[in-house]
Amino acid sequence: MNVIDHVRDMAAAGLHSNVRIISSLLLTMSTNNPELFSPSQKYQLLVYHADAIFHDKEYRNAACKYNMALQQKKVLSKTTKVRPSSTGGTTSALQAQNLPSEIEVKYKIAECYTILKLDKDAISVLEGIPSRQRTPKINMMLANLYRKAGQERSAVTSYKEVLRQCPLALDAIIGLLSLSVKGAEVASMTMDVIQSIPNLDWLSVWIKAHAFTHGGDNQRCGTWKHFGI
Amino acid sequence: MNVIDHVRDMAAAGLHSNVRIISSLLLTMSTNNPELFSPSQKYQLLVYHADAIFHDKEYRNAACKYNMALQQKKVLSKTTKVRPSSTGGTTSALQAQNLPSEIEVKYKIAECYTILKLDKDAISVLEGIPSRQRTPKINMMLANLYRKAGQERSAVTSYKEVLRQCPLALDAIIGLLSLSVKGAEVASMTMDVIQSIPNLDWLSVWIKAHAFTHGGDNQRCGTWKHFGI
Repeated sequence: MNVIDHVRDMAAAGLHSNVRIISSLLLTMSTNNPELFSPSQKYQLLVYHADAIFHDKEYRNAACKYNMALQQKKVLSKTTKVRPSSTGGTTSALQAQNLPSEIEVKYKIAECYTILKLDKDAISVLEGIPSRQRTPKINMMLANLYRKAGQERSAVTSYKEVLRQCPLALDAIIGLLSLSVKGAEVASMTMDVIQSIPNLDWLSVWIKAHAFTHGGDNQRCGTWKHFGI
Repeated sequence: MNVIDHVRDMAAAGLHSNVRIISSLLLTMSTNNPELFSPSQKYQLLVYHADAIFHDKEYRNAACKYNMALQQKKVLSKTTKVRPSSTGGTTSALQAQNLPSEIEVKYKIAECYTILKLDKDAISVLEGIPSRQRTPKINMMLANLYRKAGQERSAVTSYKEVLRQCPLALDAIIGLLSLSVKGAEVASMTMDVIQSIPNLDWLSVWIKAHAFTHGGDNQRCGTWKHFGI
């Protein structure tokens, strides 16, 4: 077990304050002696360090360290491409599996930027993730940021993507209805799941009620009476 | 896939705002019709709901929901004991594995209490976890709370437990030294790991320097010069 494994284990165990101190010391060592850690080890150290800082709610500092991690990841990818079989394909693949996900690092940067009210920067980071690699939480964050920025079409596309992967994502449903997407269209995206689960028929009434609310059809908001509201 | 599986998947995917809405609606359904969900399903719903509220930084509300989850877990344990083989041993065991950890729920409650500056309540919750089941992060939180409350002996015991499980937990080391535990004793607890990892010999000097600092031996604090400080 090398020192990076120890840091990773402590990070996984939620020992944030401990990870923060040791990763900081090891990164200083690495600056003084660049040969000490491999590019992959430096990438890991930067991510664990940034995670600990994020946990301490120092979002500007965390975003800075996550960005350094991404720069390091680029170096790492180049090294891997130049010498694809130097350490044996299987070992490299296994090492890659253990590395913190680059997508997750970008999501964390966007989270920092959102908290710091740097919405444009957050959108730009998330847009840098290819559509196919965007997880539901990335699409949800993007959708909310697009809606706030007035980019309604993009917001609708992202909310729909959340709903495609998680048909019971009710906040995404509210988002779509608030952007004037028709209730019937939204209902059709969730109908299969609602019908496949017992006792969930009230959910289509819930969608209808929200559709009326956002459609400005105040008279028909009587639908809420079904919920005793 | 039932509706609880959908909620669990959304929680795992980090769709907190969506989990918050659907779990709230399902818990209302469950109040109106107690037969609708099993005790285990209610427990899960309460934990996922509390997690979403915790994510929204509403710590008082989250602690309340986590406590309701613990109450529900008690009901669940009783039910399981009364009818051990009603649904077949293997199925029950599998279901139990999928349930959110009760230890983790207690840790979250303690985290809420700590943020709300209810230190005594936080200590009391964590002390309710049997020593053998305490993970490193639980011992770390307990140690910090004990130290703040002036319960020095208990703090030392908990920090040592962290170090026993994670010998490179440098914040636990600082904690021990600040409580006047001898540098030599602390060093002996980490020596095996430090010696087994190359290029980590500076760490024993780091421990020595911290020991001098906390020992009030200002002249010998010259040890910090090794670090260029």
